[in-house]
Amino acid sequence: MRLVIIGGGAAGMSAAAQARRRDPGLDIVVLEQSGDVSTGLCGLPYFIAGLISDIRSLVAHTPQYFRSERRIDVRTEHRVEAVHPSARMVAGRCAGAPFELKYDRLIIATGATPVPLDVPGANGPNVFYLRTLSDGLRLRAFLAEGTARRAVVIGGGYIGVELAEALRRRNLEVVLLERGDRVLPAFDPWISERAIGELGAQGISVLTNQAVAGIQPGAVHTRNGAEIPADLVTVAVGNQPALEVLGGPKARAAAEVGRTGALAVGRQLQSSLPNVWAAGDCAESRSAVSGRAIHVPLGSVANLMGRVAGDAAAGHRMEAKPLAGTYLLQVFDLAVARTGLSEAEARAGGFHPITVGATGPVRLPALAPAETQQFEVRLTADGRTGRLLGAQLAGHRDAARRIDVAAALLTRGATVSDAAGLDLGYTPPLGVARDPLIQAAQRLLTEFDGPGRRW
Amino acid sequence: MRLVIIGGGAAGMSAAAQARRRDPGLDIVVLEQSGDVSTGLCGLPYFIAGLISDIRSLVAHTPQYFRSERRIDVRTEHRVEAVHPSARMVAGRCAGAPFELKYDRLIIATGATPVPLDVPGANGPNVFYLRTLSDGLRLRAFLAEGTARRAVVIGGGYIGVELAEALRRRNLEVVLLERGDRVLPAFDPWISERAIGELGAQGISVLTNQAVAGIQPGAVHTRNGAEIPADLVTVAVGNQPALEVLGGPKARAAAEVGRTGALAVGRQLQSSLPNVWAAGDCAESRSAVSGRAIHVPLGSVANLMGRVAGDAAAGHRMEAKPLAGTYLLQVFDLAVARTGLSEAEARAGGFHPITVGATGPVRLPALAPAETQQFEVRLTADGRTGRLLGAQLAGHRDAARRIDVAAALLTRGATVSDAAGLDLGYTPPLGVARDPLIQAAQRLLTEFDGPGRRW
Repeated sequence: MRLVIIGGGAAGMSAAAQARRRDPGLDIVVLEQSGDVSTGLCGLPYFIAGLISDIRSLVAHTPQYFRSERRIDVRTEHRVEAVHPSARMVAGRCAGAPFELKYDRLIIATGATPVPLDVPGANGPNVFYLRTLSDGLRLRAFLAEGTARRAVVIGGGYIGVELAEALRRRNLEVVLLERGDRVLPAFDPWISERAIGELGAQGISVLTNQAVAGIQPGAVHTRNGAEIPADLVTVAVGNQPALEVLGGPKARAAAEVGRTGALAVGRQLQSSLPNVWAAGDCAESRSAVSGRAIHVPLGSVANLMGRVAGDAAAGHRMEAKPLAGTYLLQVFDLAVARTGLSEAEARAGGFHPITVGATGPVRLPALAPAETQQFEVRLTADGRTGRLLGAQLAGHRDAARRIDVAAALLTRGATVSDAAGLDLGYTPPLGVARDPLIQAAQRLLTEFDGPGRRW
Repeated sequence: MRLVIIGGGAAGMSAAAQARRRDPGLDIVVLEQSGDVSTGLCGLPYFIAGLISDIRSLVAHTPQYFRSERRIDVRTEHRVEAVHPSARMVAGRCAGAPFELKYDRLIIATGATPVPLDVPGANGPNVFYLRTLSDGLRLRAFLAEGTARRAVVIGGGYIGVELAEALRRRNLEVVLLERGDRVLPAFDPWISERAIGELGAQGISVLTNQAVAGIQPGAVHTRNGAEIPADLVTVAVGNQPALEVLGGPKARAAAEVGRTGALAVGRQLQSSLPNVWAAGDCAESRSAVSGRAIHVPLGSVANLMGRVAGDAAAGHRMEAKPLAGTYLLQVFDLAVARTGLSEAEARAGGFHPITVGATGPVRLPALAPAETQQFEVRLTADGRTGRLLGAQLAGHRDAARRIDVAAALLTRGATVSDAAGLDLGYTPPLGVARDPLIQAAQRLLTEFDGPGRRW
């Protein structure tokens, strides 16, 4: 019995490890197109920034480790180009030579690839995408030359923001260009404003409503007619599920693709193809709040999904839990986070959202300078049922992981009332007696628990 | 309609504030025996340590604030000595003069008092308890004299441990005496060992199995015959619900007292007396895990309870949520936490506990020195149902509030499976892709999810 896994990233290697735990006798083959597996690509911006010196520290385990310690047949430099479900076979190339491999069970864990910027000059020599360790090495080597002074970061999503910070930490002049009207569009507008404030305070110019018209050596041209000097350009305008093995744009003909653009999967992450599972950035998840399909392309979620797919492909019954949809990001001294639905998403999903916030210190104010220790959390709930729908947070990094509490509540269908009565840990060096998260919930409850609206 | 509240601590003032929110016309009187209300006594060890310079910063609001901003009639220096339920009256003394006050509704929020140490010399001049701001001022003034070099801290509970740290930070030689066989007995034994290790590393001598026989000027004598030099002795051997207003030891004859020794209360925190509610350290809570009465004497819980009692006493219907039972403590560079049931408590409660742990870093290890960044979390679950029963944690302070996630899961009846699939926030500066909390849950699940035991 052979399990073939396409992709040796977080999802693929989690799947392989779980399948091995479940079935010591299974023949497990991982086909990875690059030279490395189990790479923590989320760490790349910190390597670019110089905060991490050795890029190998982003690799959790070597192929050799998986081969010898887990008896997983990891084949790097193997690029799968097609899946043939009727023949139960994958086909691809290694070092230019074609290969074929039969499977009994298959897990697609191909991840996501950067959306290309479709403008003239987008593939120029000083234009960098960041999706592999090699991309990181190439950009850092370029920075090491010391010739670049001015950088333009195209794209204000979380990768763009992290890259802008990384390049600023290398003392470059950085301009961040965002096509939409704010950075971090996946967060609430007030959080985008905080992020822009922090980026500006750190000397990064943020230009919104700026669509790129073209890139020339030395400058980026916008459709507004601006010419922005650039010795270096990075592009991070989104990622898309990597479905090339199913025909790329024609993947929908081969397998069911969801409205998010990722593979539609069942509770055990089975795809619409027989004996084929999918996990990680190429596959959909389900929202614990809305019940709808969502796409959460994060290494942490890829780990969770890979484990379920590996379990299922090894014949067991683990199911993927619906996700809260949690995002956490540090922008210099500001941490931002969200989980669940934003107010806009909640409204679009047919809820009747009400949002209330609270601001407070991360620890007893007398113990630390107040100005750097504040955070704000806003909770969104359904006005009809009192059910918690989402949370957004911004402030000091020591408070950022409060978002996990909201995520836990959301996945368990908690009401505002549950949140308002939760006994969080408390000791003066690590918190306050009435945490802002609890305060926000209590305010929601007090404001809206009238006679006609009982939660 | 008059609401009288006995006690102006966290519970009493939360109750007053919530009652005022609910009913702008209610006559609200708070009777407080000391000169201050809404004091954050949990901050006292940090004042002793010198980390907080002004003791007034532990007072959230002045009586004047409550009078003018909330129209709450705060009467300090009013010590209530008796409650007369049939006459709906409380009686006491202010500046030596007796007073009486009628009530329509009453909230008892009298807190807890230190258990006295019943040995010769326990009331000597250099022996300090720590329950009021005055106690804190007295101890700090004594330290300021600069004559004390050697301190003995009697009691190894969390207050004793905090006091030992505080006195060590003042460069005293500190010996911590604990009657039982470990410090922090409310935590799991492995956490007690970590705490003893940290205390020892910071130069504090921890002596367990040491019952105190007597205190003399200059020394503490143990029943084992040891004589320990002491210029200063602190006593923190437990707190007991302050039920003097109901007759102290005879309180059981006046009102229902639970097995924890605190007032038994219903879901709205009503006591067994008509029109009398109770909140804070003098009253019981209910465990979200076992369903049994528990006593959680913390300022954070007092806030939650006060709010419910104030709501109920103002004629509304808020109910106290069952508590996870969360404790959080920082011991120098070590943070420890627990929530829910310990394995021993779970077994005593009729569960079939299984405990599994995981250790890992609080952030991408490449971003920070590894040796200070680890934490360990152990999860306890019921082997028959897979229900999560408790969590214990020790390690770097940045990880300590992971305990809140477990608390949220516990109060919502989560299973190990829910915990294993939870999408916590993830970004390299603030976490790792597979958090130890999730790892521990996944290990529990993988190890025990056999054919005969399906969670």
